[in-house]
Parts: sequence; structure tokens; C-alpha cells
Amino acid sequence: MDTINAGALRTGIALGDVLALFRDVDEGLTKADVVRLTGLSRTTVNQRLDSLLGAQLLVPAPEDARTRGRPASRFVVNRHRGVLLVADIGATGLRTAVCDLGGEVRAEREAPSDVTAGPTAVLALVDELFGRLLKETRHEESDVLGVGLGVPGPVDFGSGRVVSPPIMTGWDRYDIPGWFAPRYDCPVLVDKDANAMAYGEHRLRYPDTAHLLMVKIGTGVGTGIIASGRIHRGADGAAGDVGHIQVTVEDVAEPPLCRCGNTGCVEAYAGGWALVRDLKEAGYEVTTVDDAVRLIRSGDITAVRLARRAARILGGAIADAVNMFNPRVIAIGGQLAHTDEQLFAGIREVVYGRSLPLATRNLQIVRSELDPHAGILGLSQLLTDGIYAPERVRQLVEGTAS
Amino acid sequence: MDTINAGALRTGIALGDVLALFRDVDEGLTKADVVRLTGLSRTTVNQRLDSLLGAQLLVPAPEDARTRGRPASRFVVNRHRGVLLVADIGATGLRTAVCDLGGEVRAEREAPSDVTAGPTAVLALVDELFGRLLKETRHEESDVLGVGLGVPGPVDFGSGRVVSPPIMTGWDRYDIPGWFAPRYDCPVLVDKDANAMAYGEHRLRYPDTAHLLMVKIGTGVGTGIIASGRIHRGADGAAGDVGHIQVTVEDVAEPPLCRCGNTGCVEAYAGGWALVRDLKEAGYEVTTVDDAVRLIRSGDITAVRLARRAARILGGAIADAVNMFNPRVIAIGGQLAHTDEQLFAGIREVVYGRSLPLATRNLQIVRSELDPHAGILGLSQLLTDGIYAPERVRQLVEGTAS
Repeated sequence: MDTINAGALRTGIALGDVLALFRDVDEGLTKADVVRLTGLSRTTVNQRLDSLLGAQLLVPAPEDARTRGRPASRFVVNRHRGVLLVADIGATGLRTAVCDLGGEVRAEREAPSDVTAGPTAVLALVDELFGRLLKETRHEESDVLGVGLGVPGPVDFGSGRVVSPPIMTGWDRYDIPGWFAPRYDCPVLVDKDANAMAYGEHRLRYPDTAHLLMVKIGTGVGTGIIASGRIHRGADGAAGDVGHIQVTVEDVAEPPLCRCGNTGCVEAYAGGWALVRDLKEAGYEVTTVDDAVRLIRSGDITAVRLARRAARILGGAIADAVNMFNPRVIAIGGQLAHTDEQLFAGIREVVYGRSLPLATRNLQIVRSELDPHAGILGLSQLLTDGIYAPERVRQLVEGTAS
Repeated sequence: MDTINAGALRTGIALGDVLALFRDVDEGLTKADVVRLTGLSRTTVNQRLDSLLGAQLLVPAPEDARTRGRPASRFVVNRHRGVLLVADIGATGLRTAVCDLGGEVRAEREAPSDVTAGPTAVLALVDELFGRLLKETRHEESDVLGVGLGVPGPVDFGSGRVVSPPIMTGWDRYDIPGWFAPRYDCPVLVDKDANAMAYGEHRLRYPDTAHLLMVKIGTGVGTGIIASGRIHRGADGAAGDVGHIQVTVEDVAEPPLCRCGNTGCVEAYAGGWALVRDLKEAGYEVTTVDDAVRLIRSGDITAVRLARRAARILGGAIADAVNMFNPRVIAIGGQLAHTDEQLFAGIREVVYGRSLPLATRNLQIVRSELDPHAGILGLSQLLTDGIYAPERVRQLVEGTAS
């Protein structure tokens, strides 16, 4: 017996479902619209809207609010009912933001940060930046309705814990939501960075594209998969691990050692850290991925040759992903996506040459438009989804009533 | 505005939703169960059950039917309200069956058939077998509530047309549902063979496993992906094409030509047709994949060596798929899955060695339990899903009322 299904039936048309109708409708809806869209009676709609207005989850539409003296006829979501705090934690830096309930960034701050310093050091910095962002936007901790974090490793989404991360030293099984619990009385969500980026790109740039692949080429190589409009995390949160697919490269006798312990992985050839390694070996003074990006953009012949080789290797892995998953859009982000056309030309060449014609004839390979904000925007969209969940709306309404 | 969502809200708890509660509950449900599960009033539940009983979609549970003289209190789905016809079309043979509405096979027939003979010849044979199956089980064409076909190529699921198939000569864009329309007044569903197999294995053997991969190793190599309990078909119906991922094999100077026109594809090394080719070249008298399977099972050293090489190459492609999709179960079917442990040992060795530990620690690699019936059982399950769709139930109820 499918009890989840039965549960969904039992709730009928919940407050959250009514609130969800208003999402993404900037001009708002009237009572008549809600009656028409739900099939509920006018009396029931009045009750539901009164609850949502009472809890300040809905407010009169701006033009209505100006027409004093007669009751409002059109309502919109109250984006300022609370705020969301998000942090996109990368290998060498992090970006934090405070967002409204529409998911829009109100203020943001970034800082360098070494993820291998471990959870306590990194989360203390996140906390400090969150505090400054709240102060800056004149909000209290009690205004925070959701906290979201993106991390560069596999996540058990249910518990919000990082699991067996190849590069996040000291983070394995660390209780990230528990860290925030003392200060914020709200859901805390943790996801893999590339998943958050993929979801942001899908919701905000390609909302009608059901199948999308986000490839993040930063220090490492990660992928986020949108299948049927949802993040595909897989059985253990390990899905989308293109970076550790093993490849054979013809002119290489000894496959390079990867950060994960294996040899010959995609990112051991084509990740930012691998390019830094190769450029150092070639005698250049580079220490960061940004240094490598600058060198490639300057047109340095060796750097460009290495970037093109990286692109062809990435292209091979992406071609396999296309055969496997058949997305409509591949969005590429991360620092190396900003090396102009070098990388894209190489990737496109291999993907269009190697994948089946059926899978590529409508395929778009594009630079992520949201990058470097794709991560924080995706997290805020994921948190916003949670705000419209029936159970959460009930809590928010009851919290107001009591 | 998400009109699909609004539409789903408007239908409320439809007849189909009520009927769906009875699915998979062999012992049936009482009126009180339905009231409890739906939250509907007793009066409404009485009305809905009367409609479903009137349309013979529900019937009294067997033990109740025996207790004459008092009204039935427990109801079950009427599996005999109609039948489903399914055909699993392979490269060199096809299997047809007539199933009840629970998806159970009532009679089946198989026949050799060359898919490259084109749609008219193959579908005429399917038609003939369907006619014989109906006669055998004493059914009329008007009893048929669904027709389902599995084919060895990519399918545009919406239109039921095969698109750009690498091996199905003459089938490109052929209107398969149109062929059956004159005889059967019901939905006709067409899907890729490996998708149907994956769905059968998921629904009947691993119903609690959300993420499953089916690998069919027959004449070619195909994959069906179950993501979050649903078939992942991708943007063009081309998903799951592991067979045409390109691989580099160290001891091969010139990568072999594949049936798709490229060189070095997985199936050009490891598909049944490639094994037949290699065994012929080694001087053996083999013409079919079954010949090759027999030779491997006999323990012939050359045949076993080739099978192990095929397994390692398949294992590499499956390892990449594991990194990408992170399934919980990989079920392997097709003729070559019946070469005892040769194939499985090779595949497991490479997958557990090459995929990330996180993605493999709970991974099961198993022989498909349903094979060679996985395809027809998956098709009948897909058709059964359609029977419980609200719109279809409404039609069936109204058809009875008029």
C-alpha cells in the first residue's frame, strides 16, 4: 500500500497548495482566480486567503495597497515575510547571501576560505558573514526562515551530512544542520555545490527544460543533474560524479594520481588543480586556479594547449553523460568557464562528434548565465520550495495564530 | 503560472485516485479504509465506489463474494475487466503476451523475427500473434484496454514513434500506434526495450528501490534508467545509451566499426553481435548470439577469454554510469546474462574497482530475475499505470454508464 500517496490524498488542497499558486505570478491573483484554479468554494477560498493574509504570507498587491478606502482585490506573495541565508562553500572561497522569500539576493559577501580547514573553521566564518548580512539588511535571527549551504562534496540530503568526500578533509558525517540549530529556528538544507548550481540555472534560466546538466569546472570537476525538473541525487547522494570517471589519454604513459586516490580520473587531467600542477611543471609561477585562468586568457601558448587538452578530455566525459542522460541543456560554470571560447570549442567538438545524433541535435552547450551566483541562487530556490510545502505553511500560519 | 499544477488541484480526489488505492492491495479495502485514506465523507466514498463497481473496475473481494445474503464489505480491483496486449520486439525475435489488468501474463507466444525486415512485416506478425492469444484466452478485440510494444531503439514516447534508430532499418518515424488503431480502441504505448525491462524489474522485484539501472546485453547493449521510481527517457528518448559510449581498449590498434557508424563503441566490443564476429574470426562456426552463449557456457577457452574481455569493457561503461547516476541496483539481462558467472565476475571487478566507494558500498549487481520476461512484464505494468490515470478511469466509467 502506497502510504505516501494516501497521505498526499488526505491533505486535499492544503494552505501550501493555495500559496503555491501565487508563486512566480508577479502581478498576483484575485479571489476569483483562486476559485477558478482550485475548484474550491468561494467560502473556503475566503478562509484560506484570510489565514495566509493573517500569517502575512500573502499581502495586497502594490497597486491595490495604494487604493485606500476599498478592500484589496489582488494579492501577492509577501517576499519580505522573512529572509533566507545561503552559503556556497567552494574549495578555496565562499560566498554568502541574504535573500528574500522570492529567492532574490538582498545582500551578499564573499571571502577566501580553505575547505580543508575543516567544518568548525569554515562554518564559524559562514556564521560571522551571516551575522553581518543580517545586520546590514536590518534583520533579526528570528526573521530567518531557511538556511541553505552548498558544499564541494557528496551529501546525504536527508540528514544534511557530507559523506565520504574526496577533498573535504574532516567533514565526513559532520552534523552541519546541528551547527546552525542554536541560532536559527528553521530548516537547514545542505546540498552538493553543483546540484545547487544546476537547480538555480533550471529554475531561473531554463524553467521549461526538464533535463539539464550543470558542469562546474573549478578546482575540481563536478556535475549537477536535473531530471524531470528535479535534482537527481542518486541512491547515496553520489550522482553526477563526472570528475572521477576514468579516462585513457593517448599521449600519457602514466595516468596522473587523483585527489580521490585513484589514477586517471577526468579531474586529474582537466580540473583546475591539475592545470595548476601542469603549468607549474612547465615552469610557470602559478599557485591558484585563478592564476591559471589568467594565463590561459592571456593567450600563452602552453596554457592554451593545456586548456584545449583539458577541454577535449572533459568533452569525452560529457559526451558519455549525454549518451547516458540525454539532457536538453548543458550549462558550464566554475572559474575555468571564464577562459573565453577555448574550453567551449574543445568540449563542443568532442560532444557533437561522439554522442548520438538524436541526443545532440537539439542540445545546447552554454556558459552558465548565473555563475558565479548560480550556487547561492539555487540554494535560495530550494529553500523557497520548502516555504510552499503544505506542512511548513501550516506551521507558519499556526505560529502566527498562537 | 503553472497551469499543469492548477489542473491537478482542480481535479481534487478523482475516481482514478480512489481506484489507485486498491492497486497492489491483494486483500482489498473496505469503505471505512477508503474514508480513512482519502478524508472524503462516507457519502462521497459511497458514490465513488458505486461508480467503480458499476463500471466493473472494482468487484467484491473473493471471500466476500462467497458470503451470499449480506452486502460485500471488502473490494478488490477487477483484474478481469479487460486485457492488455504486449509485445517485446528484439533484434532477432519477439515475445507477445496477453495480460490481465493486474499485469499478470495469461498466455504468451514467441517467434523468431528480424527487426530489420521493417515495421510492416514485424507488426503483421505481432498482430497475428495477438489474434491467436485473444482467441486462446477467449477474448474479443473489444476487451483490449491497452497495447504496449517494446522496441530495440530510441523512442519518442509521446508519439510512440521510433526516432533515428541505429539498427531498426525502415522504422524511423513510423507511426506504430496508427498501425493498431483500426483494431483496438485503446491507448497504444511504445517504449525502448531496456526501459520496459527496467520498469518491470523496478515495479515487480525492487518496488522500494528508487534508482535502478537495467543493462540488456543481447545482440547490442542497451540500458534503461529508473530515477526516483520513474523511467528516465531524457529530452529526446535517447537516454541510457551505454552501448554507444566510446572506449579505448589497450590491446586494440584499430577500434572496430560499430553498427551506429562510429568506431570503438562499447557494443562494438561487447555486444552479442561483436562476440559472434570475433568468434567467427577465430574460426568458429557461429551465426547467432545464442551460438556464442552456448560456446561460452561450454567453457571453450577462446570464447571465455572473449567473454571476460567483453565483461571488463562493459564494466568500465557501467562504472561510469554508476558515477553519473548512483543507482542502488543494477539488473543485467539479455542473452549474454545467461553465460553463468563469467560476465558478472568481470563486470563486478571493474565497477567495484573504479567507481567511488560511496556509490558502490550499497550497490547490488544482479542478474535480472524476470528476464526474459522483464520486457513484457514492464510493458504490462506501464499499461496498468495508465488504467489508474484519472482521465482514463472517467472514460471507462462513462463508457459503462452510456
